[in-house]
Amino acid sequence: MAIKRVAIIGLGLLGGSIGLAAAKHSPDVVTTGFDADPAARKAAAKRGLVNKVYDSASRAVDGADLVILCVPVGTMGFAAEAIKDALPKDAIISDVGSSKQSVGEALRAALPDFCVIPAHPVAGTEQSGPEAGFAELFEHRWCILTPTDNAPDDAVQSLSKFWEELGSKVEIMDARHHDLVLAVTSHIPHLIAYTIVGTASDLEDVTRSEVIKYSAGGFRDFTRIAASNPTMWRDVFLTNKDAVLEMLGRFTEDLTALQRAIRRGDGDALHDLFTRTRAIRRSIIEQGQDDERPDFGRADHGPDQSP
Amino acid sequence: MAIKRVAIIGLGLLGGSIGLAAAKHSPDVVTTGFDADPAARKAAAKRGLVNKVYDSASRAVDGADLVILCVPVGTMGFAAEAIKDALPKDAIISDVGSSKQSVGEALRAALPDFCVIPAHPVAGTEQSGPEAGFAELFEHRWCILTPTDNAPDDAVQSLSKFWEELGSKVEIMDARHHDLVLAVTSHIPHLIAYTIVGTASDLEDVTRSEVIKYSAGGFRDFTRIAASNPTMWRDVFLTNKDAVLEMLGRFTEDLTALQRAIRRGDGDALHDLFTRTRAIRRSIIEQGQDDERPDFGRADHGPDQSP
Repeated sequence: MAIKRVAIIGLGLLGGSIGLAAAKHSPDVVTTGFDADPAARKAAAKRGLVNKVYDSASRAVDGADLVILCVPVGTMGFAAEAIKDALPKDAIISDVGSSKQSVGEALRAALPDFCVIPAHPVAGTEQSGPEAGFAELFEHRWCILTPTDNAPDDAVQSLSKFWEELGSKVEIMDARHHDLVLAVTSHIPHLIAYTIVGTASDLEDVTRSEVIKYSAGGFRDFTRIAASNPTMWRDVFLTNKDAVLEMLGRFTEDLTALQRAIRRGDGDALHDLFTRTRAIRRSIIEQGQDDERPDFGRADHGPDQSP
Repeated sequence: MAIKRVAIIGLGLLGGSIGLAAAKHSPDVVTTGFDADPAARKAAAKRGLVNKVYDSASRAVDGADLVILCVPVGTMGFAAEAIKDALPKDAIISDVGSSKQSVGEALRAALPDFCVIPAHPVAGTEQSGPEAGFAELFEHRWCILTPTDNAPDDAVQSLSKFWEELGSKVEIMDARHHDLVLAVTSHIPHLIAYTIVGTASDLEDVTRSEVIKYSAGGFRDFTRIAASNPTMWRDVFLTNKDAVLEMLGRFTEDLTALQRAIRRGDGDALHDLFTRTRAIRRSIIEQGQDDERPDFGRADHGPDQSP
């Protein structure tokens, strides 16, 4: 079952990148798209994010083999309702959301007679909107599919193949396990980054101007992910509440232990942890999941210098 | 009072970068150096980090106008003792440590008859050792000096000028305030990063292999600073204990509030914070303290591709 026509609902960073990646890697696939924001539709048409931008979600999904919902996870159910009557009966319905149990439930509830296979490409940047996408976003990144046990094999294979053609490596995972893994590798890091950036901007004894000036000491690394799309992230925390609270509990336990080590002057405990953490970064670089150059290879020696 | 001869004690990332930056920007300055590790001395001589590498600290400081101690902050007192008898009486003694009250006290205690002006260039990478330094490290970065009230003006000006020639912008600050500011912009971010990387590597229900594979969801940003020099960072937390614990208290208060918002499903509170934090990043980019390109401009689409 080959995928020949893909409808992308939501033309922001992820939706736009899927369209551009399909044009680059799967030129025989026709892409259609819709975004609820008229300005985003206009920008998407101008950038050619998909072959054709439609003014309604139901028109965009007409004749599609695969529909990918690229909207905040809290909006998935509404998006599914909007396309329900126009969906071809054999179409695969998928998404790109960062929490998978709740999305799966929402889509299956709204579309009980359709083939729903939730997906999560673990890729992104801090940018959002129709100007943010690029064709290479998914290359060498993992895309996790969370089909239920009764999902048809050929549909799972077709969707896997679609993502592999965009440059992704595909993994099949239980939705519940996905939510736990991503709570650690994505949701908690975002939550912590948002928190420390908020803490730093609310202090009385250190000015915001000082925080900005001396951000190269480490703080600036956190501001990148704390600049991500607020609506998308609000929805992630609300829909993956259990796993996030569970992992947050473990993080704060560990932080409390470190706090105690500092208070007691236990240098060995600190040195031991700080040594162990280096190994993880080495593995991430070895597996091609990050840039090995110092400072991520930043070229940031001021606005007046070329990289 | 012009600085003509600079002795650098400790030839790692910071010490090596000072030597290279001086060679690039202040070619008339003669640099000498020492490192306690023979292998580092050999590597430093090979890379030409300073004009001449000596086998003892006291020989390296002979005839110096300025001595910069580039050792972990817990070692500053020992380094000062080691050079005490060989120090020219008019030399300025400075350092590059990330906590300034404790370093100032240690240096003044060890060298009561000398002109001590602590300094902290807010710059660095996650790399360390004699291979890590580069001449551009300090360009467009702030260097904070924390002289006491009775420090001679001309010495403060000479040291400021030295750092400005290396490309830095110089700020004079009270040591106590420095320690509070840096606790927020550098020490707490490092502590949090070390903690979450430790938490993630100790889970039973999520494997280390999964953490690495799906690190592009945000986690990998934290692993960079959690790969920093363990000894240096242990010493920072032990010597800036009060400010770190104070700021850590504020961070955990804010994190607890966010935890409660998630538990209660208070989406507005989350969205409000996630919107405010974007402004800080914009300012950091506008002021040339970070790269504005998405993902810090990383070129990390796998080891088999060129940037």
